[in-house]
Amino acid sequence: MSVMYNRVALIGLGLIASSMHWAMKRGGLAGEVTGYARSEETRETARRIGLCDRVCDSAAEAVEGADLVVLCVPVGVMGAVAAEIKDALAAGATVTDVGSVKRDVIAAVGPHIPENVHFIPGHPMAGTEYSGPESGFAELFDDRWCFLVPVEDTCPDAIAKLRAYWEALGSNVEEMDAEHHDLVVAVTSHAPHLIAYTMVGVADDLRRVTDSEVIKFSAGGFRDFTRIAASDPTMWRDVFLTNKDATLEILGRFTEELFALQRAIRTGDGDHLFDYFTRTRAIRRSIIDAGQDTDAPNFGRTGTPKS
Amino acid sequence: MSVMYNRVALIGLGLIASSMHWAMKRGGLAGEVTGYARSEETRETARRIGLCDRVCDSAAEAVEGADLVVLCVPVGVMGAVAAEIKDALAAGATVTDVGSVKRDVIAAVGPHIPENVHFIPGHPMAGTEYSGPESGFAELFDDRWCFLVPVEDTCPDAIAKLRAYWEALGSNVEEMDAEHHDLVVAVTSHAPHLIAYTMVGVADDLRRVTDSEVIKFSAGGFRDFTRIAASDPTMWRDVFLTNKDATLEILGRFTEELFALQRAIRTGDGDHLFDYFTRTRAIRRSIIDAGQDTDAPNFGRTGTPKS
Ligand SMILES: NC(=O)c1ccc[n+]([C@@H]2O[C@H](COP(=O)([O-])OP(=O)(O)OC[C@H]3O[C@@H](n4cnc5c(N)ncnc54)[C@H](OP(=O)(O)O)[C@@H]3O)[C@@H](O)[C@H]2O)c1
Ligand SMILES: NC(=O)c1ccc[n+]([C@@H]2O[C@H](COP(=O)([O-])OP(=O)(O)OC[C@H]3O[C@@H](n4cnc5c(N)ncnc54)[C@H](OP(=O)(O)O)[C@@H]3O)[C@@H](O)[C@H]2O)c1
Repeated sequence: MSVMYNRVALIGLGLIASSMHWAMKRGGLAGEVTGYARSEETRETARRIGLCDRVCDSAAEAVEGADLVVLCVPVGVMGAVAAEIKDALAAGATVTDVGSVKRDVIAAVGPHIPENVHFIPGHPMAGTEYSGPESGFAELFDDRWCFLVPVEDTCPDAIAKLRAYWEALGSNVEEMDAEHHDLVVAVTSHAPHLIAYTMVGVADDLRRVTDSEVIKFSAGGFRDFTRIAASDPTMWRDVFLTNKDATLEILGRFTEELFALQRAIRTGDGDHLFDYFTRTRAIRRSIIDAGQDTDAPNFGRTGTPKS
Repeated sequence: MSVMYNRVALIGLGLIASSMHWAMKRGGLAGEVTGYARSEETRETARRIGLCDRVCDSAAEAVEGADLVVLCVPVGVMGAVAAEIKDALAAGATVTDVGSVKRDVIAAVGPHIPENVHFIPGHPMAGTEYSGPESGFAELFDDRWCFLVPVEDTCPDAIAKLRAYWEALGSNVEEMDAEHHDLVVAVTSHAPHLIAYTMVGVADDLRRVTDSEVIKFSAGGFRDFTRIAASDPTMWRDVFLTNKDATLEILGRFTEELFALQRAIRTGDGDHLFDYFTRTRAIRRSIIDAGQDTDAPNFGRTGTPKS
C-alpha cells in the first residue's frame, strides 16, 4: 500500500495509538509517525520499542507539520489536549480522535479547532483489556468496525481520505451521528462493562465466599466478566462520566429486566425463564455469522490453560 | 492408566456425559461404558459417533451391573431419573451426578437411593456454551475443578475412589457441603449467567438500536456476554429454579452495588468509579495466576475472526 498521510501525529501512546502505529507500518500508510505521551516514562518506553519514528517532548511539537493528528488519550482530557495543540496545527490538517464517547468529545474539542483544520471525530470499536504503549499490535483493527462521526459542514474529501485510511488499517467504517453513536456503544460496550465491573466487585466483597474460592472456581462464567472488568480504570471512569445519559438509560432498562427475571425465579415461573433464554441464544449465532467472534467453544480456550 | 470402574453408566448423553466418555476412553478408566438418553434421536446420534460402548433403550437397562452410575441430566429431572433406575442398581454401586446445584438434587435423588448403594453428589465446574451428544471432548475437565458434596455417613472408600476417578478425568477435586457449594456457584456462575442473559435480552429489545447494530458492533464487550447467554435454556431454567435462594441473595447484592455505581455516574463521582474499577482489576490477575484462564488479550482471539 502507499503513503496516505505524509506525517501522522499520535497524541497519547497507549493501546490504541500503538496499535495504529504498528498497523500503519504494516501497510506503509504514513511517511513519518510522530508521537507524544504525558509521562517521561511512556515516552522512554516508546523510544525503546521503536513506537513512532520520532517521540516528541510536547504535544505541540508532535503535531507540527502533521497532516493527520490523532488524539488517543482518555476522553476526559481530550479538550485539554486540543487546547495544547491548537496553535501548532498546520493549515489543511485533519484532526481526529479515537475516544469511546462522541458527543462530549465533540463539545470539548470542537471549539479549539482552527477554521482551516478539519475535525472528524472517530472511534475504532476494537480493544483489549490491556493498556499502555507495549500492549498494541498491528492486527487490532482487522475486521473490526470504526465509527466516523463527522460534524456539520466537514469537507467530504477529508472524510473520504480518513475513511480510506481506517480501511487501510484493517477496519470497516461506519458513519453515524454522535447521539446515535453514544447510544449504540452504551448498549454494546459501556453498560456491559459497568455490569461486569459490578459483578466482580460483588464477588470480591462477599464475606461468606472467599476471594480464593471466587478465583479457583471462576471457570463457570465469572472469569469472562473479569476480563472486561480488568480494563483501564481511567479510561472507563471517563467513559461513564461523559456518556452518562445513554449509559444510565440502558442501565435503567437492564434493571427492569433483571427484576422481571428475579421475580420469575422467586415465583418459579420456568416458562418465562425458558423463553427468555431461548431468545438470547439466537443473538450469539448472529454474531458468529457476522464474523464478530469465533465459534470455538469457550473462545477456543482448551481444557488446558496456557500457564 | 488402569480401569477404575468395571462398568460406568451415563444417564443423559449431553455435553458433560460425552466429555466424560471421551476422557474415560483417553485414560482407559472404565471396562465398559453404557449410556442412555431420553430421545431416540440422541441415542441414535450416540450410536453413530461411538459415544458409549453400548447405548441402551432404558435407563434401568443402562445401570444394570454398573459399579458407577453418573446422572448427567438437567437438575430438574434428577429425581425422576433416580426413581426410574432405583430398582436396577447393583448392590455396592456408587451413584453420582454432575448437576450444577446440590442441595435440591440431594433432596430429590437421595430418597430413591437404596441402602446398599453409595450416593455421592458431584459437580464438575467445567462447561461450554454448547450442548448435546456431539459437543463433548476429552479435555473438558483438564485442570478444572470438580466438587464432591458427600452426604452424611458415606463410606470413605467410595468417596476416595470417586475422587481418584475425577482426578484421572483431569480435574482437581474439592469437597464441600451442599449449602456452601450452592452459594459459591451462585457467585461464580449462576448470577453471572443471569446477568448476561439479561443484558443480551435488553439489547435485543431496544427500539432505537437495531439488532443488526448490536451484532455488528458487539466486539466492544457485549459479545462476551452473548457466549454465556447462548447456554442451554433447559439447563439454566432448572439451575435458577433449584438454586433460588443463593441466586436471589447474590442478585440482591448485585443490584445494591449497581445502584451505587449508577449514583456515582449520575453525580459525577469519578473517584468512586476509579477506585471500584481499580479493585476489580486485581481479581483478573489472580485468576490468570491460578491457571483458570489464558492471559492472551481477548482470550487469544486475534484481530481476524475465524470465519
Ligand atoms: N482500550 C480500548 O479498549 C479502547 C477501544 C476504543 C477506544 N478507546 C479510546 O481510546 C483512547 C485511548 O485509550 P487506550 O486504551 O489507548 O488508553 P491507554 O493505553 O491507557 O493510553 C492512554 C494514553 O494517553 C496518555 N495521556 C493521558 N492523559 C494525557 C494527557 N493529559 N496528555 C497527553 N497524554 C495523555 C497516556 O500517557 P501516559 O502513559 O504518559 O499516562 C497514555 O499514553 C481513550 O479515549 C479510549 O476511550 C479505547
Ligand atoms: N453445560 C455445562 O456448562 C455444565 C457444567 C457443569 C454441570 N452441568 C450439569 O450437567 C448436567 C447435564 O448438562 P449438559 O450440559 O451435559 O446437558 P445437555 O448437553 O443439554 O444434555 C442433557 C442430556 O440429558 C438428557 N435428558 C434430559 N431429560 C432426561 C430425562 N428425563 N431422562 C433421561 N435423559 C434426559 C438429554 O436427552 P435428550 O438429548 O434425549 O433430550 C441429554 O442427553 C446438568 O445437570 C447441568 O446442570 C452442566
